[in-house]
Amino acid sequence: MPQKILVIGGVALGPKAACRCKRLLPDAEVTLIDENVNISYGGCGIPYYVSGEVNTVNDLRATPYNVIRDPKFFAELKDVTVRIQTRATAIDRAAKLVRVKNVVTGEEDTLSYDKLVLATGASPRVPPVEGHDLGNVLSLTRLEAAETIRHACENGSVKEAVVVGGGFIGLEAAVALADMWGVKVSVVEMMDQILPGVLSAQLARMAAVDCTKHNTDVYTGEKVLRLEGKDGKVCKVVTDKREIEAQLVIFAAGFTPNGQLAKDAGLDVTPFGAITVNEYMQTSDPDIYAGGDCVSIPNLITGKPGYLPLGSMANRQGRVIGTNLAGGKATFPGYVGTWIVKLFDMSFCGVGLTIDKARKEGFDAVSVSVEQVDRAHFYPEKELMSLEIVVDKASRRVLGMQGACTAGDALKARIDAVAGALQFAKPTVDDISNLEISYAPPFAGAMDVVNVVANVADNVLAGRFTPITADKFMELWQNRADNNVFFIDARPAKAGKAVQEQYPDWHSIPLEEIRARVNEVPKDRPVALICNTGLRAYDTLLVLARHGVTDLCNSMGGMQAVMKMGLKP
Amino acid sequence: MPQKILVIGGVALGPKAACRCKRLLPDAEVTLIDENVNISYGGCGIPYYVSGEVNTVNDLRATPYNVIRDPKFFAELKDVTVRIQTRATAIDRAAKLVRVKNVVTGEEDTLSYDKLVLATGASPRVPPVEGHDLGNVLSLTRLEAAETIRHACENGSVKEAVVVGGGFIGLEAAVALADMWGVKVSVVEMMDQILPGVLSAQLARMAAVDCTKHNTDVYTGEKVLRLEGKDGKVCKVVTDKREIEAQLVIFAAGFTPNGQLAKDAGLDVTPFGAITVNEYMQTSDPDIYAGGDCVSIPNLITGKPGYLPLGSMANRQGRVIGTNLAGGKATFPGYVGTWIVKLFDMSFCGVGLTIDKARKEGFDAVSVSVEQVDRAHFYPEKELMSLEIVVDKASRRVLGMQGACTAGDALKARIDAVAGALQFAKPTVDDISNLEISYAPPFAGAMDVVNVVANVADNVLAGRFTPITADKFMELWQNRADNNVFFIDARPAKAGKAVQEQYPDWHSIPLEEIRARVNEVPKDRPVALICNTGLRAYDTLLVLARHGVTDLCNSMGGMQAVMKMGLKP
Repeated sequence: MPQKILVIGGVALGPKAACRCKRLLPDAEVTLIDENVNISYGGCGIPYYVSGEVNTVNDLRATPYNVIRDPKFFAELKDVTVRIQTRATAIDRAAKLVRVKNVVTGEEDTLSYDKLVLATGASPRVPPVEGHDLGNVLSLTRLEAAETIRHACENGSVKEAVVVGGGFIGLEAAVALADMWGVKVSVVEMMDQILPGVLSAQLARMAAVDCTKHNTDVYTGEKVLRLEGKDGKVCKVVTDKREIEAQLVIFAAGFTPNGQLAKDAGLDVTPFGAITVNEYMQTSDPDIYAGGDCVSIPNLITGKPGYLPLGSMANRQGRVIGTNLAGGKATFPGYVGTWIVKLFDMSFCGVGLTIDKARKEGFDAVSVSVEQVDRAHFYPEKELMSLEIVVDKASRRVLGMQGACTAGDALKARIDAVAGALQFAKPTVDDISNLEISYAPPFAGAMDVVNVVANVADNVLAGRFTPITADKFMELWQNRADNNVFFIDARPAKAGKAVQEQYPDWHSIPLEEIRARVNEVPKDRPVALICNTGLRAYDTLLVLARHGVTDLCNSMGGMQAVMKMGLKP
Repeated sequence: MPQKILVIGGVALGPKAACRCKRLLPDAEVTLIDENVNISYGGCGIPYYVSGEVNTVNDLRATPYNVIRDPKFFAELKDVTVRIQTRATAIDRAAKLVRVKNVVTGEEDTLSYDKLVLATGASPRVPPVEGHDLGNVLSLTRLEAAETIRHACENGSVKEAVVVGGGFIGLEAAVALADMWGVKVSVVEMMDQILPGVLSAQLARMAAVDCTKHNTDVYTGEKVLRLEGKDGKVCKVVTDKREIEAQLVIFAAGFTPNGQLAKDAGLDVTPFGAITVNEYMQTSDPDIYAGGDCVSIPNLITGKPGYLPLGSMANRQGRVIGTNLAGGKATFPGYVGTWIVKLFDMSFCGVGLTIDKARKEGFDAVSVSVEQVDRAHFYPEKELMSLEIVVDKASRRVLGMQGACTAGDALKARIDAVAGALQFAKPTVDDISNLEISYAPPFAGAMDVVNVVANVADNVLAGRFTPITADKFMELWQNRADNNVFFIDARPAKAGKAVQEQYPDWHSIPLEEIRARVNEVPKDRPVALICNTGLRAYDTLLVLARHGVTDLCNSMGGMQAVMKMGLKP
């Protein structure tokens, strides 16, 4: 008797598991069911369809070689049976049966299985606010919603839009609307920063500046209270701080794993509703596998169960499940949390824990950031990159790294190199100081920014200098009437003098002049240093320290970081 | 008594070690000597100065904040004493003295040390051919040589140039001359491919095609016999196969580590002349450190002593030495061999062993290559990336990865992610299948090319399909009169039919038609499949296998790889 494989869910993981299994076990009877019409589509591409960068919905449904992945495709080329518009309503594990229902006809049926795969995905979280069911209030997870939004943009009926949630999808949607359609967008985020949980406050501030520069207002620490409508369509968003006109509202406030079917069948699920799986992606019933947005997998940094709903995770897990359905022993050990997002001019990327998350997880952690160009400083084409490293103080273990750059691929290269290390080891600051990335002047610095940020962390851990973030520096500066800080701008005279003319307390002492003018610096006051990126200030600090000035702090990332955060003296 | 630190050599590692030590140990007396006038310059930037991308020699001598790193800079800002034009002639380890000689005045002197650093670098290998001492015959390691070449290009006296050696520096020089100055360049390489030792024959063929497309001839397996001159300047290069007119010859035939001073002092050196150091970068005399282009360090893939003269290695090792000079315990465990080079349209990048090197090192290895776009296939801006993975068959251990792409940073991101893993673990094919790189459609595929190449390797190791390289496919095709192979082009009819019209043996059977036309395919002959990148052919192969066609092989990288290698049916 051929094995019967049944897969519930047909977006990313389901088709991958089904086809992989079928390839390894050509005699198996593989059936995939999904309650929707569209299956096997690139859900992560939806914002790019909304923006118009992806031309048609079918581009998201096609293979790289341009064949639509519909039930016929799976039948003819993959020998996998697909039943669309078919919802699984219950699993009888004892009898190995799944109860299904056609969502159009209501017809019910029972499918038997030898091995079952749950690829039920996740549902967008829609806050239960008044008006959430109005027209033009959508989540960005279904192709149908994407078509509605794109159509509304194309016919010009959207002048203003509100995105609720400043995470990846929310911001990608905001970029699509503002950048490509000229819509005035407001992002409303409950937390006190955008990209919460994945960026530090400082880097998130840079992300917000990138948004506000591009017709996109960012309101953080703000809650949507209700939506108001007109003729059944949304026309206004009311928050706890303001009212915003909007002809379109996109909810992007996170996801809830679809674990109910599993839970009802008595399978283990986490308190937040994700299905529990082992490293073979098996649920608590070894004949039932699960993966993708509906499961919890270990966070390899904390060692605790975690949740990372990403299309790339689903694809890789799908292959593991397919192998194991066919009798293999493939494993998926967990995740380190690598991500990237393209906003307007800037891209942001990260891996592992942010400083806030690290502290929440109980680490005695510190974070250090730098601004440095992404290739040899003498190479003509280069971009300034911000990198922040998060480190456990006692063990020197690197817990995460995040960054920002206009050159997204270059940023990705640094973060992914660290991700490669984090997945297989517990690298220390010293390991990242020595991290061997590929080097040639058009692509990296001889002492590359990814090494430098670790070097700076090493110096900070050793107490060799006291770093402050650029926004903290500006806070000190704004409060200079109340503190006794002496401010030094170590940039070339031209840059520093311009500020000093306006504010005499801003002391322009270029690095080149510091030895001659060292006596201008008081030894009995705290001294705060700034320059363009941090390097001149560091060299100035070394000279001052040799001359007995000891209470020194250096602004990380210098004026470049100040400007990226939208601040000024 | 303050510690006396003496550093011999002032390009990359020497200044880094000196300044790091001085920072940690402010009371130390740190002296650096170098036999040249220019110190602390970005030697890797020389080809970019030749090309004009870097404006002036001083750009290579300046800090990122634009201060020239001359002896005055080191004295005033780093408190490090620099003596230029000073050659170390002997080390008396018992007395802890170094004999030095001023190369201009001939004056001799003796410097004492508590700790000594050898940063003596490497010398370009100049083949002892007749005419190697003619005018305009240069190596690209000194700023002075770079100025001579740039000047010759600027005044138009170079129409044709020969580069001897097709490694990184040779090719960077060729690009500088051909791309920026319109010089007709010939690269002469003794080995049977360019970039020997770091690329497979297939990828090297793509690199050669990139050169020949851009006014740069590539002659491999060819030896320079002599140079001929006119008025003291070179005018012709004679090889064992041809004569090439040339008004400029650049020798870029590798480096010899400068280990003689160490050897004369009784320190351990390897048979190839590099100084032996431990993980603290100490020589066999614990008070003498060495690093950079003059030392041998462990290759972490093979576990054997190796040699990797790169500016980035020198900088990182310099910091380790600086720390240890100051009493620290920093380590430099070795290298995995990560590199990148930008040619004309294409960049090439790699880590670890090539297939040839792996076999030479005794591994029973296989390599597998793919062509896939570097981001989501539905994303509008994307480039085709070639990736090749090298795997030990029995252990499934990944020994290396190399690639080619017009998007250099995107290629770097994949290779560096694998490098991050290779430095801290011995990842298997399965680990790279699961490698968690950052994902969003503008930057990666949901099943990214770096995962796919490992997936394909997994399938090949399991014997699920027989891969052939694209050039091997074309060899089968060219020899079709003598073999019994049945050729299938699985691309859409339009592409395949065009070839079939010319060559009836080239069977255009698009993937979409394979089920209907499966009986056209003989079961008693070997079948070779090709498509655009390999995907359609793979899906075709699966259908054929289900229908009893068993002797199947699939061309890796498809017609894209064929074209990149400059081949055609």
